[in-house]
Amino acid sequence: MRAIETTVAMSMDAADAAVRDVLAEEGFGVLTEIDVAATLRAKLGVEREPLRILGACNPNLAHEALARDPTVALVLPCNVVLASTPEGTHVAAVDPEELMGDDRFADLAQDAKRRLRRAIARLDAVHPA
Amino acid sequence: MRAIETTVAMSMDAADAAVRDVLAEEGFGVLTEIDVAATLRAKLGVEREPLRILGACNPNLAHEALARDPTVALVLPCNVVLASTPEGTHVAAVDPEELMGDDRFADLAQDAKRRLRRAIARLDAVHPA
Repeated sequence: MRAIETTVAMSMDAADAAVRDVLAEEGFGVLTEIDVAATLRAKLGVEREPLRILGACNPNLAHEALARDPTVALVLPCNVVLASTPEGTHVAAVDPEELMGDDRFADLAQDAKRRLRRAIARLDAVHPA
Repeated sequence: MRAIETTVAMSMDAADAAVRDVLAEEGFGVLTEIDVAATLRAKLGVEREPLRILGACNPNLAHEALARDPTVALVLPCNVVLASTPEGTHVAAVDPEELMGDDRFADLAQDAKRRLRRAIARLDAVHPA
């Protein structure tokens, strides 16, 4: 899977806050958060490196996409994945064009992709690894 | 987007509870829930038919997929979308094979798909529209 990604020299909690800030600047709210490591520990008793999945949604883009075809909800919101690495935290946003994969949404997916790229670039500029 | 779907003669709240039950029988927990209509009302002031997105995860399948390649987190969990219709509630689960779209995860995606199909079939048998 392709991703829009970078690594920042920050703890996961600090990266989580910084990601929310840069996403908000591009019009994305974070609607869901899954602490994958805590979930797998609770359900299976396994330990793994910290991993979180944020569900990011730009309401204007989502509203327009849902108006064209409500089944687009099957692939919303856009995941932004935070993973601990030796250098800090790896941040990867899903590629909306790959995710939506349908010509009817091409303009919206491209818009979302440009916004996620700017958000990740801003994160990279402010907090390089 | 392909989906595994049915329509049940139930209110959205009743369908939400029933969906969680049949998912649990197939080993899926619901990790996230987005009330799309409420979110768009709050963010944009628009009104639309009720629409919810449940994020369903089978911990065993997710754990194995993440062990093979953590970037699979970009497309987890599996969305189950509930939409109000004149007949009741339309329930649509994403097709994990289409979502994961990578031969390395083929066996896991097929397993998840079989489970989601059984869950939706059970819902359909118990609560037909």
